[in-house]
Amino acid sequence: MKIGILGATGAVGRQMLQCIEERQIPADEIRVFASKRSVGKKLFCNGYELTVEEATQDRLNGLDFVLGAVSNALSKKFRPMVEKSGAIYIDNSSAFRQEDGVPLVVPEINGADALKNHGVIANPNCSTAITLMALAPINNLSKIKTINACTYQAVSGAGMGGIEELKGEVDALEKGETYEPKVFPGQIAFNVIANIGSPLDNGYTTEEMKMQNEGRKILHLPDLKVTCTCVRVPVYRSHSISATVVTEEPVAIADAEKAIAAFKGDVLVTDKTPTPLDNSDKDDVYVGRIRRDLTNPNGLVVWCTGDQIRKGAASNAVQIMEYLLDHQA
Amino acid sequence: MKIGILGATGAVGRQMLQCIEERQIPADEIRVFASKRSVGKKLFCNGYELTVEEATQDRLNGLDFVLGAVSNALSKKFRPMVEKSGAIYIDNSSAFRQEDGVPLVVPEINGADALKNHGVIANPNCSTAITLMALAPINNLSKIKTINACTYQAVSGAGMGGIEELKGEVDALEKGETYEPKVFPGQIAFNVIANIGSPLDNGYTTEEMKMQNEGRKILHLPDLKVTCTCVRVPVYRSHSISATVVTEEPVAIADAEKAIAAFKGDVLVTDKTPTPLDNSDKDDVYVGRIRRDLTNPNGLVVWCTGDQIRKGAASNAVQIMEYLLDHQA
Repeated sequence: MKIGILGATGAVGRQMLQCIEERQIPADEIRVFASKRSVGKKLFCNGYELTVEEATQDRLNGLDFVLGAVSNALSKKFRPMVEKSGAIYIDNSSAFRQEDGVPLVVPEINGADALKNHGVIANPNCSTAITLMALAPINNLSKIKTINACTYQAVSGAGMGGIEELKGEVDALEKGETYEPKVFPGQIAFNVIANIGSPLDNGYTTEEMKMQNEGRKILHLPDLKVTCTCVRVPVYRSHSISATVVTEEPVAIADAEKAIAAFKGDVLVTDKTPTPLDNSDKDDVYVGRIRRDLTNPNGLVVWCTGDQIRKGAASNAVQIMEYLLDHQA
Repeated sequence: MKIGILGATGAVGRQMLQCIEERQIPADEIRVFASKRSVGKKLFCNGYELTVEEATQDRLNGLDFVLGAVSNALSKKFRPMVEKSGAIYIDNSSAFRQEDGVPLVVPEINGADALKNHGVIANPNCSTAITLMALAPINNLSKIKTINACTYQAVSGAGMGGIEELKGEVDALEKGETYEPKVFPGQIAFNVIANIGSPLDNGYTTEEMKMQNEGRKILHLPDLKVTCTCVRVPVYRSHSISATVVTEEPVAIADAEKAIAAFKGDVLVTDKTPTPLDNSDKDDVYVGRIRRDLTNPNGLVVWCTGDQIRKGAASNAVQIMEYLLDHQA
């Protein structure tokens, strides 16, 4: 069993290696790919030293799985090479998520969709994956009609650069120096910025529309309506989401809590308010504060937090691979 | 014209003095009151040095207005003394906001209510005042039925102690030291905490219910339904709110923008996403990103930010006094 990782030196790529180790994926060989300037760097997995190389057709050949942690543009470039190699491509970019024939998968929710792949499987948007992990158990009790979500998204959602920018700004402010933001559209230290992704004609951003577009595909709810406000906050790791969910029939709070507590990958937190700091570097999504929507008897309000490098990206991709290994003949 | 300030050494009290100066309130004398340990401290207003004293009946007598920036408990203690003095009491605590006969006032929205006072006027909750400033112009176009709000609340909403705690935690983390949180229920630096106020039986907090309870009174909408999630974020100053507002009739985005731009105290921001950093130390509420609620044709989603020490507290209180001075015979 041979695995390749595209973008292995980034925040998500490194986390994929750690997840492969933690989940004891039976890999005989792991090849780590990144851009030219990282070639020769050393990474580690399962006690082995791995040397970063360039992703050539020759080096992609012979792999069983390729996990992609690169930009949309690079993912589009590499896809035909991965397909030629015969490996299954599990891609964390948003390039193919809406393509027919490309399953978009959160294993605990719609793992079976992964089995219908034609060589490419897409990993969902981070906030979407985390929110749906919290809401899927409610959807199992009564179908979701609408979601209204506000996010509190960590800087590492923008990769290593986001982490460095927040740290750099805090350091500069402590020293009375200035720091020119490059990753975010303004200072993120001690600020919040409701502007993630690119602007669309309807006033939403690409990031905000993902929860509706991807939610429909993952939950098999083609009529699902989602309105979303995505906000970057000065948190290093783990996204939080306040979501109001309206179902076809009212769901009792106690029933929702029971379903969430029993759902694989979710932890129901009742003794305190889960925070991103509690949840950092954990695979599970923490869900709490389930209460009645005071504007709609069929609505519930839910607070959840999930590590977007793990469940929102790397762990979910590794879990998709694990699901295929467990379920394919 | 003689003014007294209760709690003059706190974040809101100091801001009140600054607002009195900025707005050129014609005060002949200002008496500044605080707790015993602050007696003798010096404060400044209009170029005069003011000496902090204890609020005795004797020193309250003769005042025309008393602005309160103290806790509910202290406000309840001082109210009969202020009433005895004959001064009008403009109180920033939540102690009397729901009391019949006590107007709850945002001057730009329901200033006329202040004229019906019986000696006590209440200043609203900070997030509520800021959110309603953004939504009142929409309510003028079509009556609001429901609001679904998520807040991003600055640490100074908890007073000077909140500012010191965030700063102390950031400093401690930079030095690799530990810091024991006292003001917030956990580390707020690089974290968000969806737990402001005290828990209620319905799963909401006292802070979260204020937007419904106070919104009904300020907007004169006894049937208004509001569901709210209040979240503390590591921002020093200015609260931000993402609010979904559903009106009786659909309101066009362009009409909402026009009404907001024309509303005194609001600034419509269209060239960027307003952030709390942009808005810090400003009296105006910044409103932006007005877009259609994708779950409801009668809904609009609005992003707003307001300085909660100013418009959410001190400036609003001083504006109430100004309104009375302008409108009373």
